[in-house]
Amino acid sequence: MKPKSVLNGLPVYQPGKPLEEVKRELGLSEVIKLASNENPFGCSPRIWESLQEEAAQTALYPEGSAPELREKLSSHLGVDPEKILFGNGADEVIQMIARAFMEPGVEAVLADRTFPRYQTQIVIEGGEPVEVPLKEGVHDLDAMAQAVTDRTRIVWICNPNNPSGTIITQEQLEAFLAKLPEHVMVVMDEAYFEYVDDPAYPDTLSLLEQDPRLVVLRTFSKIYGLAAFRIGYCVASESIITELNKVREPFNANRIAQRAARAALEDQEFVDHCRKANQAGREQIQKQLEEWGLSSYPSQANFVLVDTGRPADEVFQCLLQKGVIVRSGEALGYPTHLRVTVGDEKQNRRFLEALAVCLDKPLKEQRG
Amino acid sequence: MKPKSVLNGLPVYQPGKPLEEVKRELGLSEVIKLASNENPFGCSPRIWESLQEEAAQTALYPEGSAPELREKLSSHLGVDPEKILFGNGADEVIQMIARAFMEPGVEAVLADRTFPRYQTQIVIEGGEPVEVPLKEGVHDLDAMAQAVTDRTRIVWICNPNNPSGTIITQEQLEAFLAKLPEHVMVVMDEAYFEYVDDPAYPDTLSLLEQDPRLVVLRTFSKIYGLAAFRIGYCVASESIITELNKVREPFNANRIAQRAARAALEDQEFVDHCRKANQAGREQIQKQLEEWGLSSYPSQANFVLVDTGRPADEVFQCLLQKGVIVRSGEALGYPTHLRVTVGDEKQNRRFLEALAVCLDKPLKEQRG
Repeated sequence: MKPKSVLNGLPVYQPGKPLEEVKRELGLSEVIKLASNENPFGCSPRIWESLQEEAAQTALYPEGSAPELREKLSSHLGVDPEKILFGNGADEVIQMIARAFMEPGVEAVLADRTFPRYQTQIVIEGGEPVEVPLKEGVHDLDAMAQAVTDRTRIVWICNPNNPSGTIITQEQLEAFLAKLPEHVMVVMDEAYFEYVDDPAYPDTLSLLEQDPRLVVLRTFSKIYGLAAFRIGYCVASESIITELNKVREPFNANRIAQRAARAALEDQEFVDHCRKANQAGREQIQKQLEEWGLSSYPSQANFVLVDTGRPADEVFQCLLQKGVIVRSGEALGYPTHLRVTVGDEKQNRRFLEALAVCLDKPLKEQRG
Repeated sequence: MKPKSVLNGLPVYQPGKPLEEVKRELGLSEVIKLASNENPFGCSPRIWESLQEEAAQTALYPEGSAPELREKLSSHLGVDPEKILFGNGADEVIQMIARAFMEPGVEAVLADRTFPRYQTQIVIEGGEPVEVPLKEGVHDLDAMAQAVTDRTRIVWICNPNNPSGTIITQEQLEAFLAKLPEHVMVVMDEAYFEYVDDPAYPDTLSLLEQDPRLVVLRTFSKIYGLAAFRIGYCVASESIITELNKVREPFNANRIAQRAARAALEDQEFVDHCRKANQAGREQIQKQLEEWGLSSYPSQANFVLVDTGRPADEVFQCLLQKGVIVRSGEALGYPTHLRVTVGDEKQNRRFLEALAVCLDKPLKEQRG
């Protein structure tokens, strides 16, 4: 039983510790998880109610092409429904893109510190990942353009970038696209785009109207708070969607997730609330970090990558002992950084209090 | 934007017509769908209640390794939890197996008329499918053994076979395994195994204890009635599971499906009820077909493949006009057959009544 040769170098995915396990192991009653960029406000209260309509249909396969959700999302985004394709989370869309367009002998260009699933999928397909270092935490589009060759099939851009939280702008993206050969696809992973408040952020859906090389990736797992259900999507030209459909599992987007996402789109007030609360929480965290003289990248997402000036795993463990789970930068290529998800006001305060103790920093009493 | 070269030959998946669309187009108020081998009895009434516990956790990613469900299934099956891996339906497990073990230059042996996803996944991975004709609707294991070469990585056996419904026996499987070289993996797709009543059916989980070449594929989409949720699994040796985990999406099995499957395992009375009702329904259909002199394969599943003696698409269309959706054999390699899912007693009667009209056969009045 010989596996594919490229799997030799691939590690088995190690999942993070479940909340319940951390509680049990540490004997703590209250543990907060700010490690997976999940929405601290849950999801719209309308979701669960809408799911009751599916209770009588559990035995029926979903329609994988998700016609009703597609129609609704098409109106919401103002794009042709034929340009939308859903996945079992955006993760599966990343897989489908790699599976349809990567193969041995071809290359993909990506940042050296970005969402790790691009690299994994390129490798599984036998393609060659060409990593370009971030420049001060930001995608270095000039260097990425220079890394493109005749063998390049895809450039992956995570915007805002995970884990640095930074963005590239409309102007930068347009200049990049102008330099790029016609045969190269550009995947813009916008999983966190709803959290962005910088007006310089690109309007990729408009760019896509003129530029069939663009693929825009989005998800319901972040601001919509539906990570449990697994539903994400991409918007792309019909010719790209046709190829992705060839590798799509017929029933990939489950029925419950489709129904939940439809209900989620109908509650934009919830989205607005989460966006504003996240901006306030991001400021709450960044202001304190600044006061402590700790540097962090200017985040446009729902997380902050902060340089603690100490070994990341040590600070991670110290916070864990205090019931605060964050992401150590060690495995992210940032050996002295932590990536912390912006929680609700109370969670953010609890994180800052724990961090103050771990790093021996002063903390002024905050209003509760 | 050049896709993978092997995609050139692949058609885009064409989904079946939704029930609602058929109703609208034909102006019918009651349409029954006996086309996708779904459970006519839905799922256990306990499922939906158990899902309420997940309502507060919609924003949290699932644990892709599904520890709680795995533990419960492990006890239920009497196998080591480390030998179980879940997928977004068994479809995704088929994909993972192909993606981890197929590559250009290798072969896989499968029946010429079987579940079509094996072939699609082999082709997407650049492998070569070697088709062996069924013999009277049954896997021809002698011919399949002869088709194995040094380049064969996998033999796929669908048991009961979709679409013929037939099984291979314990004795036949053991003889086959005895002849098979050590390097070949044997995937036993047992999606319909809970419907089997033939005592000669193989006990693959016991065989697997001694034979690490076996992979047993199962699903919650059929007798458990959870097709909407997407959850299936395989049981295999730890070394195979390790390779599959390398290509598994970190959050592939959604949280809601995991919870539903746990609840489903707790209600074996529901499973027993469905098994018995299916046996009765299968007999109800097969008895009438016999009276009409129509031949069908001896099905051990929840569907029957019947030779109508007429062009399948014509009979399919005739039934559709009467509000009965079945599967035409045309695309399944059986140009005069229909594959009909065993429904509840009333649905089966409705199917037989419609078929009697379409084929101009006599029908005795049945008790309602």
